[in-house]
Amino acid sequence: MRLSQSFLPVLKESPSDAQIASHKLMLQAGLVRQTAAGIYAWLPLGWRVLQKVEQIVREEQDRAGAQEMLMPTIQPADLWRESGRYDAYGPEMLRIKDRHDREMLYGPTNEDMITALFRDDVKSYRDLPRMLYHIQWKFRDEVRPRFGVMRGREFLMKDAYSFDLDEAGGQRSYYRQLLAYLRTFRRMGIKAVPMQADSGPIGGKLSHEFIILAPNGESEVFYDAAVESIDLDRPGLSYDDDAGLAALFNEVTGSYAATDETHDPARWAMVDDKAKRTGRGIEVGHIFYFGDRYSKAMGLKVSGRDGDMVTPMMGSYGVGVSRLVGAIIEASHDDNGIIWPEAVAPWKVGIVTMRADDEATVAAAADLYQKLGAAGVETLYDDRDERGGVKLGGMDLMGLPWQIIIGPRGLKDGVVEVKNRASGEREELTPEAALAKLTS
Amino acid sequence: MRLSQSFLPVLKESPSDAQIASHKLMLQAGLVRQTAAGIYAWLPLGWRVLQKVEQIVREEQDRAGAQEMLMPTIQPADLWRESGRYDAYGPEMLRIKDRHDREMLYGPTNEDMITALFRDDVKSYRDLPRMLYHIQWKFRDEVRPRFGVMRGREFLMKDAYSFDLDEAGGQRSYYRQLLAYLRTFRRMGIKAVPMQADSGPIGGKLSHEFIILAPNGESEVFYDAAVESIDLDRPGLSYDDDAGLAALFNEVTGSYAATDETHDPARWAMVDDKAKRTGRGIEVGHIFYFGDRYSKAMGLKVSGRDGDMVTPMMGSYGVGVSRLVGAIIEASHDDNGIIWPEAVAPWKVGIVTMRADDEATVAAAADLYQKLGAAGVETLYDDRDERGGVKLGGMDLMGLPWQIIIGPRGLKDGVVEVKNRASGEREELTPEAALAKLTS
Repeated sequence: MRLSQSFLPVLKESPSDAQIASHKLMLQAGLVRQTAAGIYAWLPLGWRVLQKVEQIVREEQDRAGAQEMLMPTIQPADLWRESGRYDAYGPEMLRIKDRHDREMLYGPTNEDMITALFRDDVKSYRDLPRMLYHIQWKFRDEVRPRFGVMRGREFLMKDAYSFDLDEAGGQRSYYRQLLAYLRTFRRMGIKAVPMQADSGPIGGKLSHEFIILAPNGESEVFYDAAVESIDLDRPGLSYDDDAGLAALFNEVTGSYAATDETHDPARWAMVDDKAKRTGRGIEVGHIFYFGDRYSKAMGLKVSGRDGDMVTPMMGSYGVGVSRLVGAIIEASHDDNGIIWPEAVAPWKVGIVTMRADDEATVAAAADLYQKLGAAGVETLYDDRDERGGVKLGGMDLMGLPWQIIIGPRGLKDGVVEVKNRASGEREELTPEAALAKLTS
Repeated sequence: MRLSQSFLPVLKESPSDAQIASHKLMLQAGLVRQTAAGIYAWLPLGWRVLQKVEQIVREEQDRAGAQEMLMPTIQPADLWRESGRYDAYGPEMLRIKDRHDREMLYGPTNEDMITALFRDDVKSYRDLPRMLYHIQWKFRDEVRPRFGVMRGREFLMKDAYSFDLDEAGGQRSYYRQLLAYLRTFRRMGIKAVPMQADSGPIGGKLSHEFIILAPNGESEVFYDAAVESIDLDRPGLSYDDDAGLAALFNEVTGSYAATDETHDPARWAMVDDKAKRTGRGIEVGHIFYFGDRYSKAMGLKVSGRDGDMVTPMMGSYGVGVSRLVGAIIEASHDDNGIIWPEAVAPWKVGIVTMRADDEATVAAAADLYQKLGAAGVETLYDDRDERGGVKLGGMDLMGLPWQIIIGPRGLKDGVVEVKNRASGEREELTPEAALAKLTS
C-alpha cells in the first residue's frame, strides 16, 4: 500500500482524553475513531490488525475441533426468558423494541441462542460431542465505557460452545479450549495468564480467566511465574491426547494464579518469593464449564446410547477479539509508539523515503516496494512528499516490525538502512541484501 | 470435514412455510435457521458460503482501489440529525435508547458516519480521491420480512464510499465500481443486470441497481439481452484506464434495462423482440453518485490546490452480501437441491461411501479424503453409518460441485464414480484418476 493513496490519518498530538497507552496510541496512530461513547470505527490500519487477530483466533479454534458459524446480533427477548435470565440481566443489556413492539436485545453473549439452535436440530447421542463458535459483534451497555476498545460497548467476541454427553466429555472439551487459548495468545506475542475464576453455584475448577498485565487493569492479580513457562510444544500435547491435556490442566491449576476475587493469602504465602508476580490485569478471555445450566432450562435432550434421554453438558469459551488489539499494544509499545508482534502487524515492512524529490531515492524505494510485494511481503510504502523526520516518526508510531529507510546519502554508498522496530537495531545493507533479509 | 463430526443438520422435508426456492433450500440443506422474524443464524454450511461470497466482494473492492475498514453497527441519532435524515427515515430504522436514554440506532447504511469520519481527519486535496468500504451487518426493520435472507431484517452488506474533488472524479469512481460490480457478480456465477435507477433530485444517469431474475422478485424488469454479453476481459478495460471505463459505462447505459420504476415503453418498443428479456427481479447491488448531498450538509471541506475550500463529491456503492447467497441459489438449483458455482461452494468435493460397514470402501474413501485434503481441495466426507441413498440425496441437496461415490461393487472393478452435480454426468474412474481429475 502506498501511504499517499491511503486513509491512514495520524494525529500530531497524543490525545489527552485517553487514560491508557493503548487507547492513546490507537487514536494517535489512526487505528480507531470513537463514534459514540464506547463505540469505535476501525480505520484501515486498525482493521488490518483486527483481522489478523481474528484469524489467529479462528485458526486455533478450528484446530481444536470447533466449527465456525455465525449468529445474529439482534436476539428475541423470549429466548432469554426461556433460559431464565432476561430479567436477571442488568442494565448492561441493550434492550430494544422493534416496529411491532416486540422485545428484542443486542446480544451480549449467545448461550441461550446456541442451546435453542442445537436443541431444534440435534436429536441423537451420535451427533455429540460438538463444539461450535462464532466471531460476532456484541454489545454491553457499560455505565462508564473507558480505555478505548479495552472496555467499549460494542466489541468483537469469539464465543465457542461445547456440547458433550457427560461430565467427562465436558471436561475434555474444556481442556482442549484451555490449550487453544494458551496457543492463541502466545501466537499474538502476549502473556495471558490463566487464573482460577469464580465458577458460581456450579463449583469446581473448570473456570479460568485469561488476564494480561496492564497498569490500569480492572482487577489486582497474583500469580506464580511458573505459569508463564509452561511448555506448549512438548511431545504428547495435542487436542486428541486426553492424558496430555489433563497434564496441562494440572500444571496450570498447580501454579498459583488468582485475581482479587479468588485470591487466597494462605496459598499465596507458600509461593516462592522470587516467583511472585503481582499487578493489575485486564481479562481477554474466559473459559467456563457450566454443565446442564442451559440445556436443562431450555429442554435440550438427545436420545442416549441405551435409548434413555440425555441432557448434554455444556461449556462456553470467550475471547475478546477487539479488546485483544488494545491488549497487545499494552504489552508491546514504547515512548515512540506501537511495536507490533509480526503475527498481527498491519504490514511487515514500512519503506520510508527521506527525500521524496530525489529521483534515485524514489526509484530505489519503488523497486524495493514492487519486489517485496511480488515476494508476498506486506509492505507499506510512505511515498508522501513530507519531511523524512515526520515519516520516520509516523513509522515508529504505527509500529511495523521492519523499516527500510532510503535516502540519497546512503544510496551514494549503495546502501539502505534496515531498522528493527522492537530492538531499534539498524543495519546498512544493499537493497538486494535488504530484500533477501526481509523475504527470508 | 467429516460429516459424522459436523453440525450440518438437513431437514427431511422441504419446509412448507418458505415461499421461494432459495429460502426452502437454505432451510432444508441446513444453511440457516430463523431466530426471529427476518433474522437468521448461519450454520456451518451457510457460513462457509457466506464467507466465500464476502471474500469475492472484498477482493474486487480491493482491486478497484477501495480500502477496507469497519464501522460499528450502533450509531448515534445525532449523526443522522446532522445529515438531516433522522426524522425522514421511516419505521424501517431500528431506533434504540441506551441506559443513559441517549438516542441510538442500528445502522441501515453509513453515508452519515463515513462523511463525519472523513471530515474529522481529512483536510487537504492531497488526501483525495479516496474510496473506503466496510462489510458489516445492517438492520432494516421490514414490516413483513420474507424470502429468507433475500429480504431479512439483519443482513450483511458491503458498502463503499468515494470521495473526489470534483464531478469528473466522482464519475471516474462510479465507473470503477461499475466494473468491480460486474466482475464480482460474474465470479459468483450469477447474472446481475445493471439497470438504470432513479437518482432522485440529483438527476443524471449515475445510479444503477444490479438485479437478478427470480420468480418472486420485488419488481418487474425489462432489458435488452445485449447487456448480458458485455465483454469484461477485453484489452484496455482496467481500473486505471479512464477511456476503457467510460466505454464500458456507455455500453451498459446504451442497452435498455429498467425496472417498473424507470420503465420507458417508448424506448422498450425499439428493442429487437428477440433480445427482449422480462421477468421479476431482486436487487443485489446499488451504485449511486450523489455529489455533495452529505458533504455539504455535514460540513466536509478540504483545502483545494489553489487554497480555496472544496466540498468533496461522493458516491455510495452497496452489495447485499447475505442476500447474494439466496440470489445464487435462485439462479442455480434443480429439483434435487442447490448447485453451487465452484467459486462459492462450501466444499468443492463430497465423498460418499455407499456402505459404511464395508472395510475396503471405508479405506478407499479415507485415503481419497486424506489425499484431496493434502492437495488443498476442500472436501466433505460423508462417513456416517447411513443408507447410501440418504447420503446421495443429502449431497445433491447440499450441492457440492463434485461427488465421489464409493461402493463395494465399483471397487471390485477398481473404480469409484465421479459425478458432476451441475451436469449430472457420471464417470467411472480409478481412485488415482479421480484424484488427478479433481486436483487438476
